[in-house]
Amino acid sequence: MPGISERGNKIPASPIRKLTPFADAAKGRGTKVYHLNIGQPDLPTPQKALDALKTIDRTTLEYSPSNGYKPLRDKLVRYYDKFGIKVSESEIIVTAGGSEALLLTFMTCLDPGDEIIMTEPGYANYISFAVTAGVTIKTVTSRIEDGFALPSVEDFEKAITPRTKAILICNPNNPTGYLYSEEELYRLRDIVRDHNLYLISDEVYREFRYTEEPYLSALCLEGIEENVIVVDSVSKRYSECGIRIGMIVSHNADVMKAVMKFCQARLSPPLLGQIVAEASIEGTEEYSKECFEEYLSRRDFFIEGLNKIPGIYSPMPRGAFYTVASLPVENAEDFCKWCLSEFSYKDSETPEGFTGETVMMAPAAGFYSTPGLGLNQIRMAYVLKKEDLARALTVLEKALEAYKARG
Amino acid sequence: MPGISERGNKIPASPIRKLTPFADAAKGRGTKVYHLNIGQPDLPTPQKALDALKTIDRTTLEYSPSNGYKPLRDKLVRYYDKFGIKVSESEIIVTAGGSEALLLTFMTCLDPGDEIIMTEPGYANYISFAVTAGVTIKTVTSRIEDGFALPSVEDFEKAITPRTKAILICNPNNPTGYLYSEEELYRLRDIVRDHNLYLISDEVYREFRYTEEPYLSALCLEGIEENVIVVDSVSKRYSECGIRIGMIVSHNADVMKAVMKFCQARLSPPLLGQIVAEASIEGTEEYSKECFEEYLSRRDFFIEGLNKIPGIYSPMPRGAFYTVASLPVENAEDFCKWCLSEFSYKDSETPEGFTGETVMMAPAAGFYSTPGLGLNQIRMAYVLKKEDLARALTVLEKALEAYKARG
Repeated sequence: MPGISERGNKIPASPIRKLTPFADAAKGRGTKVYHLNIGQPDLPTPQKALDALKTIDRTTLEYSPSNGYKPLRDKLVRYYDKFGIKVSESEIIVTAGGSEALLLTFMTCLDPGDEIIMTEPGYANYISFAVTAGVTIKTVTSRIEDGFALPSVEDFEKAITPRTKAILICNPNNPTGYLYSEEELYRLRDIVRDHNLYLISDEVYREFRYTEEPYLSALCLEGIEENVIVVDSVSKRYSECGIRIGMIVSHNADVMKAVMKFCQARLSPPLLGQIVAEASIEGTEEYSKECFEEYLSRRDFFIEGLNKIPGIYSPMPRGAFYTVASLPVENAEDFCKWCLSEFSYKDSETPEGFTGETVMMAPAAGFYSTPGLGLNQIRMAYVLKKEDLARALTVLEKALEAYKARG
Repeated sequence: MPGISERGNKIPASPIRKLTPFADAAKGRGTKVYHLNIGQPDLPTPQKALDALKTIDRTTLEYSPSNGYKPLRDKLVRYYDKFGIKVSESEIIVTAGGSEALLLTFMTCLDPGDEIIMTEPGYANYISFAVTAGVTIKTVTSRIEDGFALPSVEDFEKAITPRTKAILICNPNNPTGYLYSEEELYRLRDIVRDHNLYLISDEVYREFRYTEEPYLSALCLEGIEENVIVVDSVSKRYSECGIRIGMIVSHNADVMKAVMKFCQARLSPPLLGQIVAEASIEGTEEYSKECFEEYLSRRDFFIEGLNKIPGIYSPMPRGAFYTVASLPVENAEDFCKWCLSEFSYKDSETPEGFTGETVMMAPAAGFYSTPGLGLNQIRMAYVLKKEDLARALTVLEKALEAYKARG
């Protein structure tokens, strides 16, 4: 029997999904599981977008253009303009989610053996796309004690080799919720310019910034206009992760031309998703405001609650809807597994019909490349309604007590 | 400014799209262009599938499972059973079209530098996916004078090297319309078994077979159950290319497990497409019968008409909705470009409002890897209604006359 490719063997299994069987077993025992582990927004998709599906009058669901429908790209031009980003529709290519945008960016800009520098903890699937593209990821470490701020220029310089072709950032950050300051972005700009690198900026959480500071996209960094490639997606901002609509945005015409050849090979991005995305972008300002306020209020409530639990520390994230927190345990993976397989908490507040409650969290070690880092950390997403977040905090506190006392 | 990757430079531009600017210019001059160049079915999507969109009652369009929704996979199990293919739902992974299915199969089974053998003329995007995966394609030539039958075992043996990991077939074939006989498939089986290769079988045109012979999927070839990976798609059979729903089907559990890791990295296949696909599979037997009869009757009409034009030869395709025909010209690419840029035909039958008519065809050289082959051939798709096919035949005949007479 022929074997699996080396990359097929090397591609990591999702750090979150490893726990799924334990969560399923817990549910099987009648335990209510609060999912703090995934970035699947619970908020509704805009009604306007859902309605768009009901009014489709096409009789053939045909291929769309490989770079996406022009009306969608035109709306995106106006959307970006609101964030100070001046692009034309020819500088946007629509993809099957931010995932395809990342993979095609890697494929276009890097060859096998080339290196990308990213900060750790970082989005785990970046590693998978790098393995797929044969590219090596090098990490520079951001630290919880610094609130996961951008590592020093020296740390980046140390990681640069002759094979380095790109720096990859996620801003606001998944998993840390960190939002880079203008000063940090200009520091990155200088490194990118001085070493003639690409700056790949994943900005899918752009809408979720809990600060009064003006927004700065990597696309607006002066002096590296041709070096920047922004990866974006409508998934998170309109709670429509399932439609698989993302985009690559760049002023670099050579990059866009090469990306387009990869896009032509896969024919077209999802048609129905484009219809939904197009309907989501305009006339949904009230919706976006409500979502923002909901996440902001959840963040304040959840992070404050976390830090009240003895031994837990979470920086205050300024963006996205995640945090990486440290726990008073040695091995967070073991604790997360234990929460699902051994622990269940019940009191008078436990919802009716359940034998108990527990929490599912993502061990943060899977977001680090350096072995041994983040062992006592977890990533949590606050994509539950506040009553559930409150309950999850109670259950987490009880779980830590029981875990400590288990002898 | 950082450069484009080697693969980004190597990935071929679509052989069809090169002519698009000329077609656009022709339309700009008021010429009606008959598109024989693309495999975009013109038939309607099943009404049942379109209706499914109108009855979606979800409020959040969330991620689906990485391998696709189970109800869809369950329906596919029953669908395959009708073709004698016995698979379980765990042997099916839903992808973003047949395109993603192909790319992930390459990524899973082959490493950079490994080789795939395919027949030429072959589907041009296979080359693009191979470049993306860093894989080398070797071709064995099928010949128009043999009706594009499977090349001899000796031809395959000659192409096999220590780096050969897979044979890739498309059956029924795009671009030739050839349908492999049982005997040919067993010949392939023997080669695959003797050399311990993967057999990757693209079977997206399964429904379009114009023969009484029983159907044989590669998945049913005895003795190589673990070697076969079928790539499939709902695009062509339900005229829903835009929804981007394909699938990988294999009895090889190791392959499926590795494919699944790539799928988890890209999170999920398109949700809305899955809803449409699921609604398309059952209760649409009458629809499928009508489509089949329409294509069959178009094939008979179109191929007969082609062969009546002096100097044109087309084998009679037994499947799909394409043919590769030879023209009485030296350079078909030049002729195709000339049809769009210089030629326009007008008579009393020319539809009102147009200054003239012409045809757009795909030069077949782009479907060959061996330089110099297929220079006088074109690929045509009969995805136009019969009146338009009739008119396209007239215009093509006139174009050949004028091209010859142009001096």
